[in-house]
Amino acid sequence: MHIVLLSGGSGKRLWPLSNDIRSKQFIPIFPQLDGTHISMVQRVFRQIRQADPTADVTIATSKSQVSTLRNQLGDAVDISVEPCRRDTFPAIVLVSAYLHYVKGVGLDKAVAVCPVDPYVEGRYFTAVHRLTELAAAGTANLMLMGIEPTYPSEKYGYIMPASKNEVSSVRSFKEKPDAATAQEYIAQGALWNSGVFAYRLGYVLATAHRLLDFQGYEDLYAHYGELEKISFDYAVVEREQSIGVLRYAGEWKDLGTWNTLTEIMQEHTIGQAVLDDTCRDVHVINEMDVPVLCMGLKQAVVAASPEGILVADKGASSYIKPYVEQFDQQIHFAEKSWGRFQIIDVEDDSLTIKITLNAGHAMNYHRHAHRAEVWTIVRGQGEVIVDGARREVQAGDIIELPCGCAHTLRAVTQLVAIEVQLGPDIQREDKIKEDLP
Amino acid sequence: MHIVLLSGGSGKRLWPLSNDIRSKQFIPIFPQLDGTHISMVQRVFRQIRQADPTADVTIATSKSQVSTLRNQLGDAVDISVEPCRRDTFPAIVLVSAYLHYVKGVGLDKAVAVCPVDPYVEGRYFTAVHRLTELAAAGTANLMLMGIEPTYPSEKYGYIMPASKNEVSSVRSFKEKPDAATAQEYIAQGALWNSGVFAYRLGYVLATAHRLLDFQGYEDLYAHYGELEKISFDYAVVEREQSIGVLRYAGEWKDLGTWNTLTEIMQEHTIGQAVLDDTCRDVHVINEMDVPVLCMGLKQAVVAASPEGILVADKGASSYIKPYVEQFDQQIHFAEKSWGRFQIIDVEDDSLTIKITLNAGHAMNYHRHAHRAEVWTIVRGQGEVIVDGARREVQAGDIIELPCGCAHTLRAVTQLVAIEVQLGPDIQREDKIKEDLP
Repeated sequence: MHIVLLSGGSGKRLWPLSNDIRSKQFIPIFPQLDGTHISMVQRVFRQIRQADPTADVTIATSKSQVSTLRNQLGDAVDISVEPCRRDTFPAIVLVSAYLHYVKGVGLDKAVAVCPVDPYVEGRYFTAVHRLTELAAAGTANLMLMGIEPTYPSEKYGYIMPASKNEVSSVRSFKEKPDAATAQEYIAQGALWNSGVFAYRLGYVLATAHRLLDFQGYEDLYAHYGELEKISFDYAVVEREQSIGVLRYAGEWKDLGTWNTLTEIMQEHTIGQAVLDDTCRDVHVINEMDVPVLCMGLKQAVVAASPEGILVADKGASSYIKPYVEQFDQQIHFAEKSWGRFQIIDVEDDSLTIKITLNAGHAMNYHRHAHRAEVWTIVRGQGEVIVDGARREVQAGDIIELPCGCAHTLRAVTQLVAIEVQLGPDIQREDKIKEDLP
Repeated sequence: MHIVLLSGGSGKRLWPLSNDIRSKQFIPIFPQLDGTHISMVQRVFRQIRQADPTADVTIATSKSQVSTLRNQLGDAVDISVEPCRRDTFPAIVLVSAYLHYVKGVGLDKAVAVCPVDPYVEGRYFTAVHRLTELAAAGTANLMLMGIEPTYPSEKYGYIMPASKNEVSSVRSFKEKPDAATAQEYIAQGALWNSGVFAYRLGYVLATAHRLLDFQGYEDLYAHYGELEKISFDYAVVEREQSIGVLRYAGEWKDLGTWNTLTEIMQEHTIGQAVLDDTCRDVHVINEMDVPVLCMGLKQAVVAASPEGILVADKGASSYIKPYVEQFDQQIHFAEKSWGRFQIIDVEDDSLTIKITLNAGHAMNYHRHAHRAEVWTIVRGQGEVIVDGARREVQAGDIIELPCGCAHTLRAVTQLVAIEVQLGPDIQREDKIKEDLP
C-alpha cells in the first residue's frame, strides 16, 4: 500500500519533552528489549511495516521536522516537505502530487492518509491496508476509517453510516457533540472519525486541478505559499456523494496530553528516577542525567528535559498550553539528521552546546556571520574541514573556528563535541550553508 | 562578645540543594531587597553583628566547608578548621585553644558556642550576648540558653531549672521524652536545650589539659586525629555542678527538613517557577536556569539543582535521607573561596564545568597528573599563568592546558570560563597544588 503520514503538531502540550522542533510524536516512550525507547512515529512506522512489509511510506511534514524524522527513521521513508503552512487541502494535494509526479505512483493507485501518531494495535494498519484496497477497487471515491466508539466522547467527530455492515456508505457527518447527543449517535451506529481516509490518486489530483492553478509538482511547490487556504473537508468531503466507511473495533487513542500519554506507559519511570513507597499512580520521564526523586505523590506526572521541569497533577496537566506559551525561551535540544544537540550553558555573549554526531554522519558545511566557535572533541573519531582544510580529529582535540570561517565535522565513530559559541549576537538563524570544497 | 559558631552537617536532608560540600546552612533562601537571596549562615552572621557590632565571630568547621564559608562571609570571620572529625569535646577544645593561643583571647573571657543555623529573631543573639556576660561574671561555670517550649516536643532534650526565674541554676537534664512526659516537664518549668552554652575560656582549657595530653594549639592540631572521642556532655556537662540557665522566649527553629525550611520561606518560589491557580501550599526552589511549571499540586515541595530534582509531599519529605544515600554521584556544584563551579556535562572520558571567578579572585596554582583541560573564556577579563608564563585573557580566548602543566586563572572583572576536562581517569582529588612562580 501507499500510505501518507501527516506529521505536524506543536510542542506545547507535552512540554518540556516536546518543543517547537520535537513534536509529541518524537518523544521516546516505548521501551525496547535493549533498554532503549522508541517514539510514536517509530512505533507507527514499525507497525505499518509489520502489517504490510512492502508498504511505501511517505511523510508529509514541515521543514522543521525533517531532521528529526531522518534521525528517527533514517532513509527508509520519503519525506514530502510543505514549504509553509496552508490548510489541509493544499497539503494533501502537495503530497499527492509528490507521489504521482516525483515518485511515479499511478493515478489509479490508492493512497491512505493517516495522522502520524495514533496509539493503536498493529492490526489497525491491516485495516488501513484494507481501506486502500477498498479505495482502489472503487468502493467509493473516498474511503474513511470509522472507529467503533467505546464511550460517548465529546472530543471526536462522528460518522453516521448507512448501515451497520463492516463496509458501508456514509449517510452524514456530525461535529463534536455533547455526551447525550453522542449517546444517541452511538445508538444509531455512529463511528468516531479517525481522520484516516483513502482515495485513488487521480481522484484528488483531478479535484486539485479543478480548484488550484498548477502544473505538476515543481510548480505546485514553488507557488505553494500563494495557494488558497481551503480545508480538505470543505474542498472535497462536503461536496462528495460517494463516501464509504470501514468499521474498525480496537484500541485507538490520541496521546496528546500528559494524562493520555502516561496511561499507555508500560513503566512508571523512564530515565533516572526513584519513587518512594508512598507514591501512587506517578509517572516520571526524566531526560536529564541527574536523578529525580519523588516522595508521597499521587496521580502525578513529572517530566524533565533540557527545556525545563513539569510537575503536575494528572488532571491539571491538560491545561498546560497557556502556561507553556508564557515561556519565551529558545529551543534547548533537538534531534538532527546527523545526531543531536543540547544547550548546556547560556551566558549573555556565549552559548555552550553538546553536539553528538552519529557514526558516519556529518553536519552541513556552513559558516556564521556573527559568532566564533570552539569545538573540543570529548569522544570518538572523525574529521573536520575548516575553510577547505581537512584534518583528522579525536577525543582531546580542540578546533578554533573564527567568525566567518566555513566548517563541518564528520563522525567516523560516534563523536561528541562541546561547542562554545562566542559573540555579542548569537542567533540560531545565523548559519550560511556552503558547498563542500 | 566572643562567639563560636559550629558549622557541620551533611547534605542529605535538603537534597538536591545541599550536597556533601553545601550543607543546609549555605542554601540561599532569604530574599534581600535587591532580589538576591542569602543563606542561613549569612543571616545568622548579620544578626550577630546587629546584636553586638563588635562581636568576634569564629567558625569551627571541617576543611570541606572553608571555601563555601569564605565565599559567603568573606574575610570577616575567623575559621578554626578541624583536621578530622572527633567528638564534640575535642572540637570545642580545639576552637577554645584557637581563641586563646592563636587569637590571644584571655582565659577570663567568656565564649558562647552556638550552632550555625538556628532560625531565630535578632534578639536571640542579644540573649546570647547576655549569656556570655553571665558566664564572664561567674554566675556559673557553664551557662546554657534554655528556650521556653511552645508545645510538648519529642525532638528536643529538656533542661530542668531550679526556679522559674530568668536566670536560674540547673537541677537536671532530660533526654528527648515522649509527648506526655514532655507535657509534665513543661508543667514543672522545663526548657528546651538549644545547644547554646557559654563559658570562660580558662574553664574549658583547664578541663582539656586534665583530660587530653597537649601543649598549645599547634600541638593539639597536629595530634587531633589521635585524641580520644569524648562528647562535651560526657566530659564536661555531666561532671559539672555549677551550671546555670538563661531563659529565652521567642521563635527558635531548626530548619533541617524541607518541611521546616518551607515553613519559613517568605516567597512560594525562588528561581524560575510558575504555579498554576490550583496549586495550594506549594514551594519551589529552582537553581537551574530553565523553568519549573507546577500544576494542581497540594502541600508539595519542588527543588531543582545541578544535583537532581526533588518532588515531594511535604509530610513525606522528612524521610528523604535513605533515598538520597542511594545516589552515588559526584558533587555537581560547589562554592569556592574564589567563586563557584558547576558540572554541566559528564561523558566517560570528559567532564565539562562552568567556572565563575569573582572579580579580584584567583584559584590555586595547581596541576593535574591524569587530565588535560581546555578553558574557553566566555565572560570577563583576567589573566592566566601556565607553567610560569603569564598572559592576559578575555571573553573569546582559549587556553589549552596539557596534562601535567601548572596553571591558574585570576579574575580582574567577574570571569566565566567553560572548562573541558579530558582524560581516562578524571578524579576531583587529582589536584597538586604548586607555589606561584
